Amino acid sequence: MATSLIRGKYLVSRAGTDADSSVVITDGAVFQRDGVIEDVGSYDDLKSRHSADEEIGGQSYLVFPGLVNAHHHGRAITPLQMGACDDSLETWILSGWARRPYDHYLVTLYTAMQMIESGTTSVMYNHPQTPVSGLEEDIDRIIRGFSDAGMRTAFSVYFRDQNRVVYDDDERFMAGLPSDLASSLRKFLAASNLSADDYFDLFERTYRKYGADPSSRVRVLLSPSNVQWASDDFLQRTKEYAARYNTGIHIHLVETYYQKQYGIRTWGKTPVAHLNDLGFLGPEVSCAHAIWLTDDDIDLLGQSNTTLCHNVSSNLRLKNGVAPVNSMWARGVNVAMGTDSTAINDDDDMLQEMRLVSKIHRQPGIGAPAVSSHQVLRMATLNAAAPTFFHDEIGALEVGRRADVVLLDMTYIQDPYLDPDVHAVDALLYRGKARNVDTVIIDGEVVLRNGRFTRISKEDVLAELRDRFARPLETSVVETRQMVERLLPHVERFYQSWGPDEGSPHYRYNSRS
Amino acid sequence: MATSLIRGKYLVSRAGTDADSSVVITDGAVFQRDGVIEDVGSYDDLKSRHSADEEIGGQSYLVFPGLVNAHHHGRAITPLQMGACDDSLETWILSGWARRPYDHYLVTLYTAMQMIESGTTSVMYNHPQTPVSGLEEDIDRIIRGFSDAGMRTAFSVYFRDQNRVVYDDDERFMAGLPSDLASSLRKFLAASNLSADDYFDLFERTYRKYGADPSSRVRVLLSPSNVQWASDDFLQRTKEYAARYNTGIHIHLVETYYQKQYGIRTWGKTPVAHLNDLGFLGPEVSCAHAIWLTDDDIDLLGQSNTTLCHNVSSNLRLKNGVAPVNSMWARGVNVAMGTDSTAINDDDDMLQEMRLVSKIHRQPGIGAPAVSSHQVLRMATLNAAAPTFFHDEIGALEVGRRADVVLLDMTYIQDPYLDPDVHAVDALLYRGKARNVDTVIIDGEVVLRNGRFTRISKEDVLAELRDRFARPLETSVVETRQMVERLLPHVERFYQSWGPDEGSPHYRYNSRS
Repeated sequence: MATSLIRGKYLVSRAGTDADSSVVITDGAVFQRDGVIEDVGSYDDLKSRHSADEEIGGQSYLVFPGLVNAHHHGRAITPLQMGACDDSLETWILSGWARRPYDHYLVTLYTAMQMIESGTTSVMYNHPQTPVSGLEEDIDRIIRGFSDAGMRTAFSVYFRDQNRVVYDDDERFMAGLPSDLASSLRKFLAASNLSADDYFDLFERTYRKYGADPSSRVRVLLSPSNVQWASDDFLQRTKEYAARYNTGIHIHLVETYYQKQYGIRTWGKTPVAHLNDLGFLGPEVSCAHAIWLTDDDIDLLGQSNTTLCHNVSSNLRLKNGVAPVNSMWARGVNVAMGTDSTAINDDDDMLQEMRLVSKIHRQPGIGAPAVSSHQVLRMATLNAAAPTFFHDEIGALEVGRRADVVLLDMTYIQDPYLDPDVHAVDALLYRGKARNVDTVIIDGEVVLRNGRFTRISKEDVLAELRDRFARPLETSVVETRQMVERLLPHVERFYQSWGPDEGSPHYRYNSRS
Repeated sequence: MATSLIRGKYLVSRAGTDADSSVVITDGAVFQRDGVIEDVGSYDDLKSRHSADEEIGGQSYLVFPGLVNAHHHGRAITPLQMGACDDSLETWILSGWARRPYDHYLVTLYTAMQMIESGTTSVMYNHPQTPVSGLEEDIDRIIRGFSDAGMRTAFSVYFRDQNRVVYDDDERFMAGLPSDLASSLRKFLAASNLSADDYFDLFERTYRKYGADPSSRVRVLLSPSNVQWASDDFLQRTKEYAARYNTGIHIHLVETYYQKQYGIRTWGKTPVAHLNDLGFLGPEVSCAHAIWLTDDDIDLLGQSNTTLCHNVSSNLRLKNGVAPVNSMWARGVNVAMGTDSTAINDDDDMLQEMRLVSKIHRQPGIGAPAVSSHQVLRMATLNAAAPTFFHDEIGALEVGRRADVVLLDMTYIQDPYLDPDVHAVDALLYRGKARNVDTVIIDGEVVLRNGRFTRISKEDVLAELRDRFARPLETSVVETRQMVERLLPHVERFYQSWGPDEGSPHYRYNSRS
């Protein structure tokens, strides 16, 4: 039995939507035993009532619930580091094909460390099914990576078996390509061929191995990659498996204007309306991105208690726009947030990402909608807890929840001065930086102390990665790059007639008339 | 005579608009004598031809021209630290009235240090005329602060003598207020009463004292604060003084939707069209913000060679929107950038600000406009040089220009791997961080070395500031806060019928239909 008393100048027990609904305790503390929070209140009170093995923190710390990165793909060696500059999603995805192969265990350790350093304690990790060969071993390596870093993980493998080059049948598209290009492409795609049956078998094995123990730090979820990438039949089977295993479904959704258009062209309705017709939406479903939504779409998400995982930087970097987060809040959607492994600074700094969210949804004009600091913290904690299927075990510092706690040194935030009337949550959102994160606790266990990892050596992981990437570029990577370079003009041509949309925006950031 | 040879793995001599037009030298160097660049080329070549007193940098550095923050107001103890959360400009300005008084010398040292730490070597500093009492001494303190930090400064005091509470005549607006509120407000405003004649006298004295020596690091500019805040007569006199003293004019312009509406209501045309009618626009004029522009406005700015100073974070934080930077580039406007002392992280980190600029103007869709990394670096160097009136003395590392140079340690950028095909300017814009800025050189003088200031002690400045701000809140501040709190609902009511605009946006980031 291990206990600790965690103290802060301010302790954010629960993020609300404003200063009135957030619960913040001045000189507050949390008492936890074996990872479960047993008491929350004033430090003096808790100190008098509990004898803890260890006291952590003190009067110079801001203490808040561990952050939940609700959409993530790993990629700690970033696409830019692999040679791919930002581009529109549809073309950028292809340049990702030419990524160098890497050891998933090491890269997962590295991505977990980057997240923990900015106060992230849980991640919704979504793995590509490619390459199918070695996929099961990769899954083991990734889960072991997160586990060795101490991180809480909602794990899924995404499934994609159609429209993999452009949003049209693979064979039909390839028929229009020069035959040698089509032939290399066909060979390349074959590496990701996986049947729906095999996907569900893999899910069941993974679930039994890692997801069945409710006390573990792992949940195993299902993931059709996106509506245009999986058949209706697959979507419906996902829904059945989720019910059978009582687990969640993570899906990408209308990330781009083209994805919305695919819906209009294919079903004569938006992808969200189509999912609603299929009975797919629901509280176990979380959708990443969801930018190109109509007002009706937003209502459908809200009414079905579906979660939206907002990825502000990724949406800008991949030229997809700005998700209508203010409209979603107004219409009762549960809005979470994540980095999509494409954060603004090419790292996974959730505090920086939260700051950008809090700035970008400030609609012009006096009294116009904007998300508050409290709402953004809630998007990164409580609202993100549900779709991970850790549910009410995480997301707030309350009795009965797991002790996932961040201690941020407030010295910088208030140096050389901070007006005493500034709310702690505003101070965090305006000025808190990853480098001020001092201690991170997951399940009651200190995984970062004084900014240093307790379980692993960051320097060793980096040294090993440097060593592996010092090898010459793999021939297969060079060949894929050449193939993609030839392919790109065909893909661009395919989408030429699709847009851009001239509809009315949710937010108007400037005006030409 | 002092000389140095400054070496980098990559030396960005000049930012263009793309990889073809940017000039980057691999293993490059700059040779400078007494602050003037005498040679630029490959390190080996320069090493063989010059004997330098000192060699700076090496193969692990990215070397680029000193950054120019083209719109800045000091405020190193930020509005948030002073107790004012972000709000719409028109109401936020009022909460700034309740700012605590401070020593301008110390705060200028602090703001200069924050800027230098992120590679900024020149600043366009714009000072409020308030309070008029002690203004001339404040000017001395500020210029001494920048000068002691070693920073290059384009200095101006802004002038504002009308519509100071809302965009309407002060007395007319106050007539509608409760008489005691009007009376405190009238008294408060009196502290900023300054006649146009007194402003121009002050400009002339400041110019003669600091601006007349072309070899100094100071330029003195003129500044009508904004078109709704200064009379047409004042604007025209500014233009005459600028011509007589061969100096620049810095002005705020259509920062908000309401400012545009003020133009329509007052002159039946946009503020830019009005300035054009007055003959005000021109190559010596730089406009901060300029968000609510019509296509015709943009053409007028372009045709007159007027500079636009883009402040991406401020525009979001103060609920003003996104300036149509892509349209400006397309129509030939000289686009610079600055932080407006309201950068995303509540500091003056230009690298972070450049990164946000490079992300936010990525219009949705394949092939849709976006600013390149090169364009953003150019906005922060060459394009910002002209309006400071240091003209072609700064902004690039070229023979004959002053040696304002930044050395950024590339270790982090390329750790644990960076594809060799990634352009140095992309690497900088995607991954360069202020904490990687190792050495900053201004006028050939090293002002930051190994991340430490050579002239001043940051810790001493912070300690002194902490000490001063530890004093209790001044009674005058508390009183002003109370006055502003009473005033705000009246101000909000004033603007209620003005908007919001329902026009067609320059960029469409999402769509509701």
